[in-house]
Amino acid sequence: MLKLYFAKGSSALASHLLLEEVGADYTAHEISIQSGAHKEGAYRAINPKMRVPALETAEGIITENPAILNYVAATHPASGVLPDTSFGRAQADAFNAYLCATMHVAFAHKLRGARWADTEQAREDMAAKVPANLRDCAQLIEAHYLKGPWILGDQYTTCDAYMILVPQWLSKAGVDINEFPKLAAHRDALMSRPATQTVMAAHDL
Amino acid sequence: MLKLYFAKGSSALASHLLLEEVGADYTAHEISIQSGAHKEGAYRAINPKMRVPALETAEGIITENPAILNYVAATHPASGVLPDTSFGRAQADAFNAYLCATMHVAFAHKLRGARWADTEQAREDMAAKVPANLRDCAQLIEAHYLKGPWILGDQYTTCDAYMILVPQWLSKAGVDINEFPKLAAHRDALMSRPATQTVMAAHDL
Ligand SMILES: N[C@@H](CCC(=O)N[C@@H](CS)C(=O)NCC(=O)O)C(=O)O
Ligand SMILES: N[C@@H](CCC(=O)N[C@@H](CS)C(=O)NCC(=O)O)C(=O)O
Repeated sequence: MLKLYFAKGSSALASHLLLEEVGADYTAHEISIQSGAHKEGAYRAINPKMRVPALETAEGIITENPAILNYVAATHPASGVLPDTSFGRAQADAFNAYLCATMHVAFAHKLRGARWADTEQAREDMAAKVPANLRDCAQLIEAHYLKGPWILGDQYTTCDAYMILVPQWLSKAGVDINEFPKLAAHRDALMSRPATQTVMAAHDL
Repeated sequence: MLKLYFAKGSSALASHLLLEEVGADYTAHEISIQSGAHKEGAYRAINPKMRVPALETAEGIITENPAILNYVAATHPASGVLPDTSFGRAQADAFNAYLCATMHVAFAHKLRGARWADTEQAREDMAAKVPANLRDCAQLIEAHYLKGPWILGDQYTTCDAYMILVPQWLSKAGVDINEFPKLAAHRDALMSRPATQTVMAAHDL
């Protein structure tokens, strides 16, 4: 049985959604970031990076959304959420790397500026730039990386589960997703799926 | 034939190294970041993100180091650089996601602070924190993620090619890699390989 460590409303939502979408046999264990549980010894033994998500498997722990998404997809082949060619998987990996290293990081400068600068002034300056950066990311996806109806085309893949975070990031940064019609339609398609509704409820969203 | 778009001394070095390591049939095409060629129309048509690396394949373009590394590994199975179980691949994906989204991003705050803040003061504050952040990343890898002799153990994988960037980042940030004995030994093992030497020379390193 798989065990997902998550915090409500965090980026663990993406991995959580894919577990639900493929019908994985898993439990979800909440780690409260607000109370600092992710920095305590018990969780540090699971993920020394002190971040969620982390996925406990029979073989060991997996961290990082892109890695968890690929693992869940690969171990549930009947779900079809892993593209079946090397090039298709590369397109999925590239999209997921962009969300992970560019768009999630852009969003993190809103509340987690202390990771990258020690002064209050610098953190304010970073937070001020977040809406513009997220708008640029959304525009890039809108223009180039959303084939429709799903990210890579006809098939729902790992990328679509990761996309559940995009409306959250935009909304928290005060950017209206309706500026991006394809993103808004994709959000609607995601939200209409039972797995999405189950997981959103588990995160109080 | 594969075509790698790279800038000398950039993070494209990682993808470049793996192409060389697996004996891929490829050419390398230089895009000068200094002269702004990555922001011109010709390259934007290849990678609208205006970043290197990008890999042109018969099926289309692949961007992002983690995606290119997995693709090169998957299409050169005899090289053995892709772990052969889902869990093994997840460990590689997790490590590569960490380098991409945490350590590379931490380094980027030294010279690319303008991505995340508009004031000069904020950019200086970010740059000041880079050595401490890179030291933390190096310490985390040293303590938890370098099994030895290679990152995942006995087999050289995609992670080891990505690791070619770590000594570069540390050195540019003024952090002595010898503070981290396992990282230093790994760097020596990497540097002794002919593929590393070929690619370092191509980047004038
Ligand atoms: N690259 C990681 C990022 C994980 C991450 O940053 N998680 C945040 C929640 S969204 C976290 O655990 N933050 C706790 C903290 O910053 O102390 C991934 O994609 O899984
Ligand atoms: N997440 C991307 C990052 C690529 C990236 O940031 N490349 C840098 C060079 S190391 C670049 O092209 N910078 C140009 C710029 O910032 O204008 C990857 O891993 O490939």
